Amino acid sequence: MTRSDAYPSRVGCDARILPRKDPVLHGSITPTGPLSVDQLESFDRAGFLAIEEFFDDAETLAFRDEATRLRESHAGGRAPEVIIEPGSGEVRSVFAVHRSSAAFRGLARHPRLLAAVVQILASAAYIHQSRINYKPAFRGREFYWHSDFETWHVEDGMPRMRAVSASISLLENNVHNGPLMLVPGSHRHYVSCAGRTPERHYEQSLRQQEYGVPEPDALEELVGQGGLVAPVGAPGSLVLFDCNTMHGSNGNITPWPRSNVFVVYNSVENALEEPFSGQPPRPEHIASRDFTPLEAAG
Amino acid sequence: MTRSDAYPSRVGCDARILPRKDPVLHGSITPTGPLSVDQLESFDRAGFLAIEEFFDDAETLAFRDEATRLRESHAGGRAPEVIIEPGSGEVRSVFAVHRSSAAFRGLARHPRLLAAVVQILASAAYIHQSRINYKPAFRGREFYWHSDFETWHVEDGMPRMRAVSASISLLENNVHNGPLMLVPGSHRHYVSCAGRTPERHYEQSLRQQEYGVPEPDALEELVGQGGLVAPVGAPGSLVLFDCNTMHGSNGNITPWPRSNVFVVYNSVENALEEPFSGQPPRPEHIASRDFTPLEAAG
Repeated sequence: MTRSDAYPSRVGCDARILPRKDPVLHGSITPTGPLSVDQLESFDRAGFLAIEEFFDDAETLAFRDEATRLRESHAGGRAPEVIIEPGSGEVRSVFAVHRSSAAFRGLARHPRLLAAVVQILASAAYIHQSRINYKPAFRGREFYWHSDFETWHVEDGMPRMRAVSASISLLENNVHNGPLMLVPGSHRHYVSCAGRTPERHYEQSLRQQEYGVPEPDALEELVGQGGLVAPVGAPGSLVLFDCNTMHGSNGNITPWPRSNVFVVYNSVENALEEPFSGQPPRPEHIASRDFTPLEAAG
Repeated sequence: MTRSDAYPSRVGCDARILPRKDPVLHGSITPTGPLSVDQLESFDRAGFLAIEEFFDDAETLAFRDEATRLRESHAGGRAPEVIIEPGSGEVRSVFAVHRSSAAFRGLARHPRLLAAVVQILASAAYIHQSRINYKPAFRGREFYWHSDFETWHVEDGMPRMRAVSASISLLENNVHNGPLMLVPGSHRHYVSCAGRTPERHYEQSLRQQEYGVPEPDALEELVGQGGLVAPVGAPGSLVLFDCNTMHGSNGNITPWPRSNVFVVYNSVENALEEPFSGQPPRPEHIASRDFTPLEAAG
């Protein structure tokens, strides 16, 4: 019997755009938490929501110091949680920081953040993935366009679209230093990708992705409909975005580095199954299978 | 007897920042041409001047069509005037378009443009270099920070700072598609670079530069003083910038390509000498030695 797959991708067909089968807001639009009705409606419509000064200066500074400490402690190392920039050898990402760092464990369970997530998912949540992204000054590399859900579905077995990502800036994002760009409205379309997933793809893809990459035609269509938005702001700003919102960022030749903490919350009612690629699951530090509901930090 | 060099660079010393020894405006600030006193003072202060809608829609469309025709006629070719993007093989630049194309010969001698140039240089001018830059959608590469004068001095023997560049946009520049970024005030500082120039350096440097690259410390200092500005606007806009203004651009993953025509005007009183690198001069299509004064198109 063939397994049911709501969002087929990399199954040997041509690329195409399929409609989303899941809601974006999984409950009713009621201001039962920190997000207002306007904010919830904006998230529903655009697929993301930017909030400046979500964390105060003291909190942000503590997170930044911790991110610097982690990068330095991993310099030159080869821990599986660490992704190295091709070429320069600099640390590009550190995964599973909500496990390795008390500060980021606290951030991920921050009461106001977690309450906003629960407003969107309308269920308890667990952490699918967390990481710090470091985009260095002068030589920061691009992140090409992608829907996170496409990868999480195909490579991790996330069955449906009921996950939300939180990106917290640790340094200023401005229009020049390669900020996150999102395609408003793209979360309503599933860009099914061509090709098949090779074995142990993640070992390369986290540095430079070759499979699960949307075709230029699909990107032109989505950007033609929705345009592009790059939220900018001071450190401590938050962007919440749907798991299927198309996003990417240009490189950074400016003297201003850019780094952010990224936490992915998945509904406990959307726990991972076997990957739809037919390959073995990715490691725990990239795609957690500990579905214990998160409780807010005390 | 040692040859005098007002702007030594790549002479085997460490990198350092030297003061400019030449004026930015070479005559008096008088509105004897298309540029107003305010515009001249702004150019003097910042090192550049952006003017929207310098060319009208019909002119711009004709230039764009001609640029497309040139790119297509050079696709897959190996003419020396053509620079190919590393990796993709796409045409990145076509040089000496004021010679190969009647449309761009006309653009370079456009009466209003040439009169603005003469206001700045306070002398007759000739064309040191012209080219079209094509920054493709999705995979457009960065241009790292540089002062054009540093290269023109070292590799072409341009003795002093008395040249001005005109960049005319053929497609929209917006904050997302890797627009030209300039460092205001940087034109008053000469960033002398480390190292020495290898032979036939230009064959590589026009694709990816390794010598004549300013150090991070120098860039931090200049950007710390002046910040960054990226003029954006519709096709047909003009940016005039001093030969020594530090500039660069990020890559472009958006679906919006970006291309521009670039014409460099040098004062006839600043004609090229032997290169200060001690190497043979670069070819005529990159650094012209035809110092005949330009006359405005009829």
